Amino acid sequence: MERNGKDAVNLIDATIAAIRPLDGAAMRDARDHQARLTKPPGSLGVLEEVSVRLAGLAGQCPPPLPEPAAVAVFAADHGVHAQGVTPWPQEVTAQMVANFLAGGAVVNAFAAQVGARVSVVDIGVAAELDAAPGLLRRKIAPGTADMTAGPAMTAGEARRAVETGIEVARELVADGARCLITGDMGIANTTASAALIAAFTGQPPERVTGRGTGIDDATHARKVEVVRAALARHGLAAGAEKEPMDVLAAVGGLEHAAIAGFVLGAAALRVPVVLDGVIAGAAALAAAALCPDALGGCVAGHRSAEPGHAAALAALGLRPLVDLELRLGEGTGALLALPLVQGAVRVLHEVATFDSAGVSEKPGAAGADSLGTGPGTAVTT
Amino acid sequence: MERNGKDAVNLIDATIAAIRPLDGAAMRDARDHQARLTKPPGSLGVLEEVSVRLAGLAGQCPPPLPEPAAVAVFAADHGVHAQGVTPWPQEVTAQMVANFLAGGAVVNAFAAQVGARVSVVDIGVAAELDAAPGLLRRKIAPGTADMTAGPAMTAGEARRAVETGIEVARELVADGARCLITGDMGIANTTASAALIAAFTGQPPERVTGRGTGIDDATHARKVEVVRAALARHGLAAGAEKEPMDVLAAVGGLEHAAIAGFVLGAAALRVPVVLDGVIAGAAALAAAALCPDALGGCVAGHRSAEPGHAAALAALGLRPLVDLELRLGEGTGALLALPLVQGAVRVLHEVATFDSAGVSEKPGAAGADSLGTGPGTAVTT
Repeated sequence: MERNGKDAVNLIDATIAAIRPLDGAAMRDARDHQARLTKPPGSLGVLEEVSVRLAGLAGQCPPPLPEPAAVAVFAADHGVHAQGVTPWPQEVTAQMVANFLAGGAVVNAFAAQVGARVSVVDIGVAAELDAAPGLLRRKIAPGTADMTAGPAMTAGEARRAVETGIEVARELVADGARCLITGDMGIANTTASAALIAAFTGQPPERVTGRGTGIDDATHARKVEVVRAALARHGLAAGAEKEPMDVLAAVGGLEHAAIAGFVLGAAALRVPVVLDGVIAGAAALAAAALCPDALGGCVAGHRSAEPGHAAALAALGLRPLVDLELRLGEGTGALLALPLVQGAVRVLHEVATFDSAGVSEKPGAAGADSLGTGPGTAVTT
Repeated sequence: MERNGKDAVNLIDATIAAIRPLDGAAMRDARDHQARLTKPPGSLGVLEEVSVRLAGLAGQCPPPLPEPAAVAVFAADHGVHAQGVTPWPQEVTAQMVANFLAGGAVVNAFAAQVGARVSVVDIGVAAELDAAPGLLRRKIAPGTADMTAGPAMTAGEARRAVETGIEVARELVADGARCLITGDMGIANTTASAALIAAFTGQPPERVTGRGTGIDDATHARKVEVVRAALARHGLAAGAEKEPMDVLAAVGGLEHAAIAGFVLGAAALRVPVVLDGVIAGAAALAAAALCPDALGGCVAGHRSAEPGHAAALAALGLRPLVDLELRLGEGTGALLALPLVQGAVRVLHEVATFDSAGVSEKPGAAGADSLGTGPGTAVTT
């Protein structure tokens, strides 16, 4: 696909223009159908609403089963790594990409478990990566610039990264995927995530900056100050009004911009997205700022241990399906949630109704009273 | 298999005698291996401990993958239904069994999603059920007696139900299952569950008695009083010392006794069990009272919306993997957790180590400092 600046602008605008709100009639159909199924009303809890939203996204009830699924792991490096925000060397990003491509990472194991395909997108790794099966070479830049010294990306880089995310979503759906899963890899990417979440939610840096993959108190304190300094430098303190693309360019990562585009691209195609952890949450805030309706078909796969993720989910109004103190990224939390999303939709396809199965419905309050409190008969038969 | 009283006693005792504590050496191996895998230490959160416990159960690291999985839906009726504790007619138990066998229930949809086989065990349905594929006809009695008027089961019935649960576990494992999942069906079984949980945990009836599949305030108040009356009648108020089998017989259901046996039988075979909701939680308390080591290989699949379930899980020291306000039973919550359990173990089999993958490990604190805070080089290449 072409990637000159003009096409990029057009692709983003055209994608946003194609996104529709969830279909209210299909959602009503799904709610009505859930009430007729052979189970107590509401007894599938949070999963009933997932099925209703996916019906709204598809514009029909039942919606298509969200399978097969494909996870795109967007990999990129971060100039803010130079500020000492993590003990992990930057080379680990490229090393882990090689590990993904060799099938040796947790994302590979979880994807195999739930039947999802893994693609790795080099959107901005600070190393040359050789062509390999499963690798999409779409490098915009060899990592971002240090956001404490200037914008992390130029406006053009940010736009091209969003455009690339849209393109990846389109390609995976063209290849047959009916559910997209966000993944990410990038040493120092929780720092950029914290800055994005602070900028989009207005939460203070110390509330949304966590320990990432594991840092000590001194490094954490430095990380909070780095986020605070970046926000101040770019005029992104609480209350400031900013264009979403400007926020992405100022303090985001190339993978954040690409994941925001991935969400937009999926929404335009009415394909659901299962969001992974804090990086996806930060990217989803950008997508929502660009087009609030893009979030209609997004499911929060899990809540990570990063404090900023909870803040992002609260701002997005999404309830995570899995909450197990994971803090790995790669798409791992979202992959664990995939069978729950698929199960929620499968219920609309396969479960019998009270009528069709000949199962007695729960009577109303009056009927309940008629059961009386006398001795039972069933146990004496 | 034979089921006379003498064999039953022997089978239970022999099963308990075969249960071993988790293997400490295998658990240490699993923790050490987790620390060498290409991910930040601890980043798989709760799932790391699941993998460690299953290594301890198997006595080796990695433990076998917990698949294929089989869910046994133990169906039974309850004499306490006569006390007006639910608006659902008792016939729904048998109707839902027919629905399970026809493949039309949520348990069928979720089992299909995660690749588990469904068996239905008639351990005490108050109706004659015709032979059908997938139905194990092991009826001990056509439902329990009303626990407010006398013991729900005779001592012999309770023993035979536990024995049958052991036998079902053995049969499913003999048929190839390497992970067992508890399921249940029985109108009024949350009342018996509440009584069991109150008896085993010492919690007051009003704290552990919920709204089951959906009841109004008046029915709920009646249900609490029914539980209180049953506990008082059988001398099971807080602080009372009782034999576990006596508690089961006094206020349990036939499915509770069978599920307790199912847990014991699986533990003796060192096969993991994923527990479903409040009925399984009550049954697991009975199993733990009979043999504390039987719980070592149990994973709490989910936490149901029933308040008694949280009390049971706290007493068992189990953390649920899924928490989505489900309140359906049938094994549905446990089935949703199955891919998480399988994924946790798969990590020990398939994920590369730092050494094998050539990925740099996170340096210690001293190493972290050496990263410095100067300008980065990677982004300028």
